[in-house]
Amino acid sequence: MARDASHQYLIAPNPGDRRLTRSVKGVDETGKVADIPVVEERPLTIFLNGQEIVTAMTIGDYPEYLALGFLRNQRMLQPDETVTKVDYDDDLETVVVRTDGSTTYEEKLKKKTRTSGCAVGTVFGDMMEGLDELTLPEASVHTSWLYTLSATINRTPSIYLEAGAIHGTVLCRQDQPLVYMEDVGRHNAVDKIAGWMLSEKEDGGDKILYTTGRLTSEMVIKCALMGIPVLVSRSGFTAWGVDIARQVGMTLVGRMRGARFTCLSGEERLVRDAEPKHAQDKKPR
Amino acid sequence: MARDASHQYLIAPNPGDRRLTRSVKGVDETGKVADIPVVEERPLTIFLNGQEIVTAMTIGDYPEYLALGFLRNQRMLQPDETVTKVDYDDDLETVVVRTDGSTTYEEKLKKKTRTSGCAVGTVFGDMMEGLDELTLPEASVHTSWLYTLSATINRTPSIYLEAGAIHGTVLCRQDQPLVYMEDVGRHNAVDKIAGWMLSEKEDGGDKILYTTGRLTSEMVIKCALMGIPVLVSRSGFTAWGVDIARQVGMTLVGRMRGARFTCLSGEERLVRDAEPKHAQDKKPR
Repeated sequence: MARDASHQYLIAPNPGDRRLTRSVKGVDETGKVADIPVVEERPLTIFLNGQEIVTAMTIGDYPEYLALGFLRNQRMLQPDETVTKVDYDDDLETVVVRTDGSTTYEEKLKKKTRTSGCAVGTVFGDMMEGLDELTLPEASVHTSWLYTLSATINRTPSIYLEAGAIHGTVLCRQDQPLVYMEDVGRHNAVDKIAGWMLSEKEDGGDKILYTTGRLTSEMVIKCALMGIPVLVSRSGFTAWGVDIARQVGMTLVGRMRGARFTCLSGEERLVRDAEPKHAQDKKPR
Repeated sequence: MARDASHQYLIAPNPGDRRLTRSVKGVDETGKVADIPVVEERPLTIFLNGQEIVTAMTIGDYPEYLALGFLRNQRMLQPDETVTKVDYDDDLETVVVRTDGSTTYEEKLKKKTRTSGCAVGTVFGDMMEGLDELTLPEASVHTSWLYTLSATINRTPSIYLEAGAIHGTVLCRQDQPLVYMEDVGRHNAVDKIAGWMLSEKEDGGDKILYTTGRLTSEMVIKCALMGIPVLVSRSGFTAWGVDIARQVGMTLVGRMRGARFTCLSGEERLVRDAEPKHAQDKKPR
């Protein structure tokens, strides 16, 4: 098996990109001075048709995908709306998304600001809106895929392996990772995947979403809105995340480390075609 | 040394509180059915003097401290303003904070919603406001304190040890942990500490803040606003977090695991009174 799995990806992390990390002088526990690589964190302001929507803190790559995915996952871009242009301005740190439709963003924004005026932490607002009608497609999940994905992703050169302090999200099909995004905000990494899917008109029905972050209500809702029936994480669960996954018919696998995992929703779709003891991923991420 | 350090605390986690975790039926990698403890996640809507400010997703303990600390760290409560009443309604999942002053929250809210209408991820907005004038008090930090704190905190019974998927923040003085808060949102855990400090009129100048979360710009800014000159984490750094810590004169210690740590700001205040090889904390959190 290849040690470096980057060639398998449509988009892989680019730890060599000098815009994404910076070397900072510091000391270790013995007093030894060292140059420590740390991730960048910069503001990006997202506009929709001339309306300023949000300023997100991001590592800074794929700003167009981040803007598109954010707006889509916030239901500010409707599925039937056509995006006519996405303009990123590096100096101004802005992205402007233009559509042909009349958007409902003003109403949305008013609703959101009423329920969540300040943007620290997690939003509630109209988060659950649109989930009632949503049912994810049936999809079987081979446990061998999960082990292969986990091993491949952990071996992939990444900003995480270079500098830490960053979350990763990977869009996969069966045992193949396709698009691997990283960001200081775990939601940004997911939104960048959503933006890529929207741009490429990729359907979520045959996909698996792998994330390093916890399986909270927000993460499950984003995955559901992206039409992806399987969500996998190295981290743990919240009770509400589990409730929503069960409601929309999502297979939810967490605490995936080495041979071990826990499945708290949709376990009837798991196809156990791998002996856990043969799982190769022993390395932590 | 006592195995259970809970008695040392003014406030310690309460993993036995049945409102905070729930047992969910699931399967493991072998197909074995098990009851898995997962953390709760519930909405809490915070009002200031009749104005709805935000709905946060929280584990649900100490709602009054969360509301006070959130408003203070958002600079919606001014230092000279007197809080006259804090009412929590369990059924409505609301907290109302009342003050005697005329607050500037409406202006603040308008400003925030213009720059950050939707509350997912991290805010920029007027985040840096008020930091220019701020300089933290001089404070030496004994490395022995850091090792003792880390070992004590890791041994403290917590929801993290029970169910995972939760962040912890601990307010400490020298080698003594005082107040240990946990929450699904790492910012909530910090805000609950800030709320406690505000209620108890505790000064931050002689304190150390320990967090399990990453040292991002937001985390450093919150710590600075709380007047705490030392911020320590098991996790890593972002470049902007380091920049702000250096600007306000904060000692910033990250990647603290076992005997190892990295200091990227204020290292001149470290008093190296412990041999790293004697550090006792080998257990991961």
